[in-house]
Amino acid sequence: MKNYSIARSRRLRSTPYTSRIENQGVTAYTVYNHMLLPAAFGSLEESCDHLKKDVQVWDVAAERQVEIFGKDAAKLIQLMTCRDLSKSKVGRCYYCPIIDENGNLVNDPVILKLAEDRWWVSIADSDVIFFAKGLASGNKFDVKIYEPNVDIFAVQGPKSFDLMEKIFGKKIKDLKFFGFDYFEFNETKHLIARSGWSKQGGFEVYVENTKSGLELYDRLFELGKEFNIKPGCPNLIERIESGLLSYGNDFDNNDNPFECGFEKYVNLDANVNFLGKDKLIKIEKEGIKRKLMGVFIETNKINLTKSVNIKDDNNNFIGELRSACYSPHFKKVIGIAMINQPYCKASESGIIEIDGNSLSVKVCDLPFI
Amino acid sequence: MKNYSIARSRRLRSTPYTSRIENQGVTAYTVYNHMLLPAAFGSLEESCDHLKKDVQVWDVAAERQVEIFGKDAAKLIQLMTCRDLSKSKVGRCYYCPIIDENGNLVNDPVILKLAEDRWWVSIADSDVIFFAKGLASGNKFDVKIYEPNVDIFAVQGPKSFDLMEKIFGKKIKDLKFFGFDYFEFNETKHLIARSGWSKQGGFEVYVENTKSGLELYDRLFELGKEFNIKPGCPNLIERIESGLLSYGNDFDNNDNPFECGFEKYVNLDANVNFLGKDKLIKIEKEGIKRKLMGVFIETNKINLTKSVNIKDDNNNFIGELRSACYSPHFKKVIGIAMINQPYCKASESGIIEIDGNSLSVKVCDLPFI
Repeated sequence: MKNYSIARSRRLRSTPYTSRIENQGVTAYTVYNHMLLPAAFGSLEESCDHLKKDVQVWDVAAERQVEIFGKDAAKLIQLMTCRDLSKSKVGRCYYCPIIDENGNLVNDPVILKLAEDRWWVSIADSDVIFFAKGLASGNKFDVKIYEPNVDIFAVQGPKSFDLMEKIFGKKIKDLKFFGFDYFEFNETKHLIARSGWSKQGGFEVYVENTKSGLELYDRLFELGKEFNIKPGCPNLIERIESGLLSYGNDFDNNDNPFECGFEKYVNLDANVNFLGKDKLIKIEKEGIKRKLMGVFIETNKINLTKSVNIKDDNNNFIGELRSACYSPHFKKVIGIAMINQPYCKASESGIIEIDGNSLSVKVCDLPFI
Repeated sequence: MKNYSIARSRRLRSTPYTSRIENQGVTAYTVYNHMLLPAAFGSLEESCDHLKKDVQVWDVAAERQVEIFGKDAAKLIQLMTCRDLSKSKVGRCYYCPIIDENGNLVNDPVILKLAEDRWWVSIADSDVIFFAKGLASGNKFDVKIYEPNVDIFAVQGPKSFDLMEKIFGKKIKDLKFFGFDYFEFNETKHLIARSGWSKQGGFEVYVENTKSGLELYDRLFELGKEFNIKPGCPNLIERIESGLLSYGNDFDNNDNPFECGFEKYVNLDANVNFLGKDKLIKIEKEGIKRKLMGVFIETNKINLTKSVNIKDDNNNFIGELRSACYSPHFKKVIGIAMINQPYCKASESGIIEIDGNSLSVKVCDLPFI
């Protein structure tokens, strides 16, 4: 497939780390929340291998924060998500589908509870800030909503724990999955969460003090030499193998949380009040008509630039492939597809046309690994 | 400057025209409303020259529509914009700043009034759909809000009028600036507006019937040979020379409409009710602290990837350059900058550091041409 350049401008915002990653060999960008998100440092396969073995630092500043602060902050946060946050705790991250009045997805952020009246919505690629502003205004909520100056970098991979211990001491290893706390580096406190967009383990540093954050970034690369540290980015192969879903790729504002396998984050109890709840109750009662599933495709390369229809033997539409990559682990292409009933179960099969070739598709459960 | 590839995926949506423009030689993309927007077909300077003389067809499907339909549609539309739409007419386009409760800009769409209860908000690069959904929900408005299947292509340049006449007859030339109507092509009606993101004149075709739209696209290239038709895209040089502002580049959600020179679209009369009105009344009374201005920079090349500070002789910050390009017309770099008081008037000067060089900056009024 031909490569196209990305036309740079202020509208595709740089991050504090951009000049560093360009010196470190970034080769491709995507755009995420109107910001540059590195998408490759050379080969995706080599980078995936490395991520599974060693440690990488990722510029994921494009995971922007929407800060919601004030008396009605918790009320607004709960109105936006189908996940019950009534028992949520300060110092914890919560994966929360954001739902509109139609019961469809607006985003799937991680929400950080900083205080009872102060939350960060760490967003996937859609302008949740304007959804929150519209809701707050219409409901006359007493809140302030803005994008704080927070530029996340992630430290990911099995050796991230030993590396981070070298800087922050043993207590960073006590952080539980999806917990966060403040850790000091050169007299500056940084919010660090045990999280990240891979299944290889690691941390995300929510950098508010840019100068100190850049020093920490550089320090990680100095100390990381013994762990074979490399720059990296969310890796298409690793995230599909792990079944990490991506808003805009695997699902969007035309899909509901049940179709995406988010049922454990949907709470339809009487005491939880959120937008689109009546629609989700109806969907739960009637059952879903399609579901996100894994698929294996009998080929050894693919470059998906849009959805591709999956058909049955009689040329009837049975679903669409939304993300895909070649997996060195499975030695074939794997993907994530929205598959219609009754085909959305493991071992169903279909056919897909790619570059003029008919390829057989086998449906499976997510995650792959 | 090094070129970086754009990493393709479903999240950066293709358009119905993507395969065509890739055959026609697109070389760079930007991302706009989560969609691919072509940014170059080779040289920007040659393309700018051609646009000013002949005719181009642009894939601007990334100008997405937010349809607002229902009993309270007009009320919601007016709530979102500071422009008085009480006397608006069906069949007309209106350039409308969208404002939040802080009096800051959310977007600067063209709004099409299709019927009293049906509007299209033809958006710049931010998710107005979620702002509208939040407001509608909070205010309990009786409206439906969704993104219809509309993929605009533009026909721009001085010869666009004669070309379009060949297909649609003389009556297409009667369309007034920012008027729209339905015109038939091969038994399919297309909404066509006299509009477009250049000052060279032309039309935008709001394609709802994709098959017919693609036939029309191809027909334009067949009939356009005698007018030296070429594929093109919004041109950085032409748009800066013409003073066409770009949300995300020249202004964003941190700026208010007075700072951006939009005062003629702000109506603070008692009978117009919109969000952030009290803030705008206050700003009008107190006066603005900075303003978007043109600048000339004494150099012959620039590649802006983010804002660059402008300083005075004593190294004090006086503003920031947000967009810039080399203009063959002026034989120097021109740009758009947010300049503080009292420097935001023509003939003030400053200094900018680019690639280690100090360059002199001269402030001027917009537009350049």
